[in-house]
Amino acid sequence: MILTVTLNAALDVTYGVDSLRPRTSHQVGTVHRRAGGKGVNVARVLAGRGRDVTVTGLVGGPTGALVREDLRAVPGLREAFVPVAGDSRQTVTVVSGDDGDATVFNERGAQVGPPEWRAFTGRFAELVREASVVTLCGSLPPGLPSDAYARLVRVASEAGTPTVLDTSGAPLLDALCARPDVVKPNAAELAAATGREDAGAGAERLRALGARSVVVSSGPGGLLAVTPDVRLCAVPPERLAGNPTGAGDACVAALAEGLAAGADWSDVVREAVALSAAAVACPVAGDVDAAVYERFRTTLTVEDLHALQPH
Amino acid sequence: MILTVTLNAALDVTYGVDSLRPRTSHQVGTVHRRAGGKGVNVARVLAGRGRDVTVTGLVGGPTGALVREDLRAVPGLREAFVPVAGDSRQTVTVVSGDDGDATVFNERGAQVGPPEWRAFTGRFAELVREASVVTLCGSLPPGLPSDAYARLVRVASEAGTPTVLDTSGAPLLDALCARPDVVKPNAAELAAATGREDAGAGAERLRALGARSVVVSSGPGGLLAVTPDVRLCAVPPERLAGNPTGAGDACVAALAEGLAAGADWSDVVREAVALSAAAVACPVAGDVDAAVYERFRTTLTVEDLHALQPH
Repeated sequence: MILTVTLNAALDVTYGVDSLRPRTSHQVGTVHRRAGGKGVNVARVLAGRGRDVTVTGLVGGPTGALVREDLRAVPGLREAFVPVAGDSRQTVTVVSGDDGDATVFNERGAQVGPPEWRAFTGRFAELVREASVVTLCGSLPPGLPSDAYARLVRVASEAGTPTVLDTSGAPLLDALCARPDVVKPNAAELAAATGREDAGAGAERLRALGARSVVVSSGPGGLLAVTPDVRLCAVPPERLAGNPTGAGDACVAALAEGLAAGADWSDVVREAVALSAAAVACPVAGDVDAAVYERFRTTLTVEDLHALQPH
Repeated sequence: MILTVTLNAALDVTYGVDSLRPRTSHQVGTVHRRAGGKGVNVARVLAGRGRDVTVTGLVGGPTGALVREDLRAVPGLREAFVPVAGDSRQTVTVVSGDDGDATVFNERGAQVGPPEWRAFTGRFAELVREASVVTLCGSLPPGLPSDAYARLVRVASEAGTPTVLDTSGAPLLDALCARPDVVKPNAAELAAATGREDAGAGAERLRALGARSVVVSSGPGGLLAVTPDVRLCAVPPERLAGNPTGAGDACVAALAEGLAAGADWSDVVREAVALSAAAVACPVAGDVDAAVYERFRTTLTVEDLHALQPH
């Protein structure tokens, strides 16, 4: 079983409007509501690929009830959220019909109290023992300590379960001392966290701070993976138009699968780029396009940057 | 008791953001959730003025439960909604911190079926018998006939209860044949419904189609009231900056009060302008500023346009 953690789960609401015009009133055309948050999207991708996946995190209130209800309808996905007193957050994405562009409003989330956090860590310690790998994704809700992910990484390590971490800012930096197995920032998050614009230099900095391996996603620029043994890079063979929101989550899903299977890093990178591209081709985060996935994984070249160095 | 009807009740969500930038992601600062819809705002104003007020309409699902819960906390307000199977709609207003401007997204609302509409009209027939006046405000949810307000006006007439109607487009035009006592379009709605830019000509057109009296609101341009006996006009003595959203609802509250009390039309118009201005001065629809209200009602001049005509 792969365990995905979403501490700040959300109900993702998508509004279709003819055209977004600031300072005016809009009649919303289509409305979609769906459980969201990075870890939830990772779980959807894994469940869609037939993996046994469990979703945990914190949810509460009427919005949290909608999140749980939506996830219970996903085949192959087990929902094991821990309840909190506050109402879960909502995100609103306004998609403009004229240009297809998205404007996003993210609520911060309800306050989480110390007893709720203790209840979660207890539940997590049980779940992680059954997991082959655990993903820790997204922002922290208000009230949690900024080293929340560090604590969860340590609990996972004690259970012998490898971790994939996808977060940014202080929660990322404060987790590194717990030595997560894979950290996946995107290029902007990496630059913000390390002050280094060069992805290779930034990845080495995160490794120096405690990350075992670092995978940096750069959208159409592809992936850079820096591990203790290899430095690999893969650029998508074609540029896809579409929705980039779920690409990072699909990448994390591929990393978790690879880690669970003990796959070779060049295969992991190939799968991660192909699955990310397949997510870009779908309008909703958590979905992947099977044809794009097959095309990318069969045509993609993964370069070994160490091999390219002059000796 | 004054009865207010909100067939398309909503949960009004307000997001405070630093600055609205289309095609980007926003961290939402403040979040406010509150029961909304025009008739709900009218009821809040009336309850705030110590009136005995009952709110009815259609609500359903988890969003409808939040609407009911919020209204039950308002002193002096009785909640008598009729349940529907679908989830009530939400509106999202994004208020930009840099200029204070609001961008609004209105969901259309859940589909209402014929049995639900029958259940509502039955409940309405009971409630309207206890009412001194009834207000019918806002858009119709999907599934209701466009003459829904006409039917309710007829039921009210049979019970001897006068009606104030505040809607637009087809629901407005299709209600006129039932002879509502007061119709309150704003200037833009009146022009759209009648094709006449001149408010006096538009008001006479609505009267010719069946409205007994017409009150046209023109924001800072004030109010024009055309009744079988008088034609009155009042312009606010000062221009207020603020939130215009609740002004129309405060105006309807004043019209309902005046109709219930059998007040003189010049007093009704004075109260309506003062209460509208007092609503503009408050950031949330349904609230009024007591100081602005007092200042406007004591300094406002109501002009009799018939008296101004040359004989």
